[in-house]
Amino acid sequence: MDERIQQIEQVAILGAGLLGTSVGLGLKAAGYAGRVVGVARSEETLAAAKQRGAIDHGTTDVGEAVKASQLAIVAVPLGQFDRMFQQIAEHEHDGLIITDVGSTKQSVIASAREHLKHPGRFVGAHPMAGSEQQGPEGAQADLCRGKPCIITPGNDTDEDALATVEAMWKSLGMTLIRMSAHEHDVQTATISHLPHAMAVLLVLVAAERGGWDVASTGFRDTTRLASSNPPMRADILMANREQVIEALNTLGHRLDRFIDVLDRGDRGGLLAMLEHARQVRDDWVAHRDDIE
Amino acid sequence: MDERIQQIEQVAILGAGLLGTSVGLGLKAAGYAGRVVGVARSEETLAAAKQRGAIDHGTTDVGEAVKASQLAIVAVPLGQFDRMFQQIAEHEHDGLIITDVGSTKQSVIASAREHLKHPGRFVGAHPMAGSEQQGPEGAQADLCRGKPCIITPGNDTDEDALATVEAMWKSLGMTLIRMSAHEHDVQTATISHLPHAMAVLLVLVAAERGGWDVASTGFRDTTRLASSNPPMRADILMANREQVIEALNTLGHRLDRFIDVLDRGDRGGLLAMLEHARQVRDDWVAHRDDIE
Repeated sequence: MDERIQQIEQVAILGAGLLGTSVGLGLKAAGYAGRVVGVARSEETLAAAKQRGAIDHGTTDVGEAVKASQLAIVAVPLGQFDRMFQQIAEHEHDGLIITDVGSTKQSVIASAREHLKHPGRFVGAHPMAGSEQQGPEGAQADLCRGKPCIITPGNDTDEDALATVEAMWKSLGMTLIRMSAHEHDVQTATISHLPHAMAVLLVLVAAERGGWDVASTGFRDTTRLASSNPPMRADILMANREQVIEALNTLGHRLDRFIDVLDRGDRGGLLAMLEHARQVRDDWVAHRDDIE
Repeated sequence: MDERIQQIEQVAILGAGLLGTSVGLGLKAAGYAGRVVGVARSEETLAAAKQRGAIDHGTTDVGEAVKASQLAIVAVPLGQFDRMFQQIAEHEHDGLIITDVGSTKQSVIASAREHLKHPGRFVGAHPMAGSEQQGPEGAQADLCRGKPCIITPGNDTDEDALATVEAMWKSLGMTLIRMSAHEHDVQTATISHLPHAMAVLLVLVAAERGGWDVASTGFRDTTRLASSNPPMRADILMANREQVIEALNTLGHRLDRFIDVLDRGDRGGLLAMLEHARQVRDDWVAHRDDIE
């Protein structure tokens, strides 16, 4: 494990859900010898995270955790970031480095800039790891291993904070990808938020038109994302709505062209679209060992 | 096995691809004691189907297979139905019952009415079974087992032909669902052709906007159908284009509403859509033991 991380005496994990608890387990598994303090709103959650061995100590008091920590990892739902940054700011000291796990980055960074005393020591991150499980019970030490972690430093980001945050995510076995917060939000709108929206729309169209008797594995796979947590997803879509609307509009234009090709009975034009999509997707799958 | 099927001396399977060969293997596994003759355009395909034990005899001559058969199962791609029905008609005798495996039904039935001498003895079917494999090599005796098979009789369908065809599909372990060809095409447009079109559009939008670095399992699952065989899929979309266009338009209207809710920052309206979709999907999954 990187020396930068071993020198940290205490890490605070703010939010002991699936991801926060998995980060704690991952740090322990990677040999981190310092103290891990977990913060959650319920004592039950803290007890579960401690029982799993992800944290050494649990508290409902953000200030208590932050005061004696050199690194804080914000792992709460997007809707709670403003409040969490406010609470951190009350106890923020010069030696504190902060990162997060939020699914959108421009909104998180704007909140950090608004509330934190030293926003340059906040380094936005998006570990692309998840599971159908929820809470500390579903946490896994290797949840992040082999997965991409997007790091979104800005012009004002402290170099020392950036190095520490990157070393921490790398210690969990993640592949780091640096990009701007704007680029992150454009890409996730296309690759994650748009497919979720389409899964939802496909289910709503089926609810309107019927056809459940003939639904099988193809429909199940295409609509799987429609079963994900609605409040969490609503927060993500709202936080990134500008980019999501752009992605939805691009899809809308392509939808119009698809309808037009069918309407004109243009089998050649249709086939060209299907061939192009298959080639692009198959090329992507072939170049990713972590997929399929 | 139903006595109706055991009384058949010879079954002709016209098209020895994945599905045709699987039907042959399934009939043998179910104890069918008569002769199974397979027809394909290539000797290699016939040899493979025979080697798998799916057929007793292979021929490239439709007439030879049809003349001595009491039941013919058309298992060719949609684009070859017209030609196949023409060839069958040349040798069609009064004792011949015909069924098929086509993914659309109104177009197939129209073709049967146009070409066959006794269209009342044709009973349209759509066994909802498939695999990522192709050809006789990928065939499985239990491919159809436990899956739904849509049967689409019309007003002019012969009762005896209907009973025989239903008994045949049932002998493979399929769950029979009767509906009109129109209803079948409406339902599959919604549940199968629309999700395929959306998978294609999601890949094309990603090809235009980028984001492959952040793509993971969610994108993979939602776009899986975009990797299916383009010529086969183009035939299906063209054959059912009237219903597919209606389904695409319904999705387009819902897309506009989704964009509008985001645009207005209406988190409550958005959450209501996400909650509705999740509930509908989860209810469906919970009531289907063959899914997940």
